[in-house]
Formats: sequence, structure tokens, C-alpha cells
Amino acid sequence: MLDSVPSFDRLITELAKFPGIGRKTAARLAFFVLKQPREQAEALADALKSLKERVRFCSICFQMTEQDPCPLCLDPRREGSLLCVVEEPQDVMAIERSHCYQGRYHVLHGALSPLDGIGPESLKIAELKNRLSDGSVNEVILATNFNVKGETTALYLARLIRPMNIRVTRLAHGIPLGSDLEYIDEATVGRAVKARQEF
Amino acid sequence: MLDSVPSFDRLITELAKFPGIGRKTAARLAFFVLKQPREQAEALADALKSLKERVRFCSICFQMTEQDPCPLCLDPRREGSLLCVVEEPQDVMAIERSHCYQGRYHVLHGALSPLDGIGPESLKIAELKNRLSDGSVNEVILATNFNVKGETTALYLARLIRPMNIRVTRLAHGIPLGSDLEYIDEATVGRAVKARQEF
Repeated sequence: MLDSVPSFDRLITELAKFPGIGRKTAARLAFFVLKQPREQAEALADALKSLKERVRFCSICFQMTEQDPCPLCLDPRREGSLLCVVEEPQDVMAIERSHCYQGRYHVLHGALSPLDGIGPESLKIAELKNRLSDGSVNEVILATNFNVKGETTALYLARLIRPMNIRVTRLAHGIPLGSDLEYIDEATVGRAVKARQEF
Repeated sequence: MLDSVPSFDRLITELAKFPGIGRKTAARLAFFVLKQPREQAEALADALKSLKERVRFCSICFQMTEQDPCPLCLDPRREGSLLCVVEEPQDVMAIERSHCYQGRYHVLHGALSPLDGIGPESLKIAELKNRLSDGSVNEVILATNFNVKGETTALYLARLIRPMNIRVTRLAHGIPLGSDLEYIDEATVGRAVKARQEF
């Protein structure tokens, strides 16, 4: 049946390229598009195109933005001596949502992964080094992920930045808020015990 | 942060209109689009538009198609005296995949649901009655879903079609192939016992 409706099959193929969306889910989404008014499908098509047309990466911090430099890099209320290094644009948003950080950002666009051929030159590390060279930053917070790639990247960056006489910090480990202790993995509990604080 | 990137926010809003896709998944998909080459986003945008431009519903069976009448309605090898009535276009595909049916189809585009204001006039029931009026069909297989709406629709159609001296059948209930009996609900097992067959 499907071979008689090539444009339906084509939409399924395109939707199935999304991560976590297989052909069955893609077919479900395509049937939804089929039932929606035409304007709805066009609105999505336009949104896709305009994202690729309008969104670029800030030439200073490499966060995504529609203006370059991005509003955050231009904001005089942000503390210029504090720089938070993250892997991806969505990590900036995660930290902004906490409303606990007033410094600036640097997005690496990935993490070191030698086995996948991702070395320092694949990331925005030369650009980071360049940003730090004028001496205006006095603390770099390494907020790469807490997995093997992220930790490797943090170690690499720490070795690179410390000789520049800049303080290097890392996000704290500990028990997530609202957790039941019994469900927290033992490594996290161990770190939380060692890093216990005055109450 | 997001308010500085309106086209990103707009794509999330559009993607989140899909059933089963919330804002978090939509954001993950939008970040994927951001990282993909521009051609990729344009291919998806074009596929969306061309689906709405090219795909229509067959004026005979109401299955989706790019030509009207659809290839299945025009195929002389399909048995014209046998008509299978289903709720949605995807149900036609499910039955075609079984390779066990050689008749024609009629897609209702929904099921009766008085509480949601969906009565016979909202479905392709007048069109079905019209198709049956020329006497060429001698068996209608009701393949609406096996839930309350689908059963209600099947009962309604059976009462409508029987007086036309057309045989009305329904897909068989029973144990799905490859199942463990202990995991099958008791109602299904009960129906399978009552409908037991010579072995």
C-alpha cells in the first residue's frame, strides 16, 4: 500500500532520522500530519527552515543566538570575571534555569572522545584559550557532564587553564534535592559524605 | 535564555503539537535539527509540505492516495464483492501487511462516539451505504477496533447493512500467535474457548 503514496513514505523516512524516533513512531506522526489542517504542517515546515536560517552560534561564547554577539555576552550585568564551560547549548539553559549563576558561558560543542576521533581541535578549546588570554577571567567553572567523556574533558581543561593562574572549579557532587537516600547510588552517597558541610 | 532565540522556541512549540511529544522531547528534537546540516531540515520541511499538497483521500474508499481513484480501487485483481470496513488509513496498511485479504476497503475516518459529538454523519457512512447500494458487494467485513467505540460502530453498521441482504462478518477473536496463555486476559481466553476449532 505504502508504495502508492510516495510522499507519505518520504515524510516517514525524514521523521525517522530524528534520534529516538523509529519508523513506527514516524508513521504515527505522519498520520497525525495527514489529519491536521494544511496550515499546521506549513507552520512546522517554516519553523524548521527559519531555525536553520536565523539561528547561528555566538562568535564569543558559541551559544546559539539570532544576533551575534548573543544577548548574554552583551549583557553588562553578567560578571565577566566568571566563566562557565559547558558541552552543549542546552547545558547553558539548564544552568540559567537554576537562576544561581551570574557569570558568562563558553560552549565547547561536545566533549573529548579520542575513540570517536574527537580531540581538542574538534571542540571550541582554542577559542576558550584565546578568551582567557586577556586576563579578565579569574575563575573557570567546569560544567561538563559527569560521565567519562565529560570528566576527561574537565581534566584536560583543568591542566590547560591552571598554568594561566586562573582558578578552576567544578560543579559540586552530592545528593539531589528531594531524594530518598536509599535510592541514591553508593558512589554519590560516598562523595556526599566526604564533602559534608556545617549545618 | 530561550526568549533570545525566538525561532528555536517556535520550533519547539510546533514540534510539541505532535501527540506524545512534550516540550522536553521537542527541545531535544530541535537541538538535533540545530546540529544537522541545513539540507536535512529543508528535506523534512519539504516532505511535510508535499504530504499536504499531494496526498488526498480516494473518492471511492477514502484511503489516502496521490491519485484518485487510488491504485487499490482500480486494481482489477482485487475481489469487488468483498469489502472490509476500517476506522483509519493505517488499519488498511495493517491488513495489507497480513497478505491474507484480496478484497477492497472502505475507510470510515473515525468511529462512533456520541459523547465526543461524533455521529454517523461525521464518518464516511453515507458513502459506504451508497457503495453498497448497487448490489455488487456480497460480504462486508467489519474491521473496526475492538474497543468501545469500534464495537459500537460495528453494531451500528451491522444493523444498517444486514437489511440490504449483504453478509456481515467481523474479524475473529482469539489468542494472538506466539503468546503464552498465562499472560492473555481471561475475556480473550474465554472467547477463544467458545470459538475453538477442529484440529
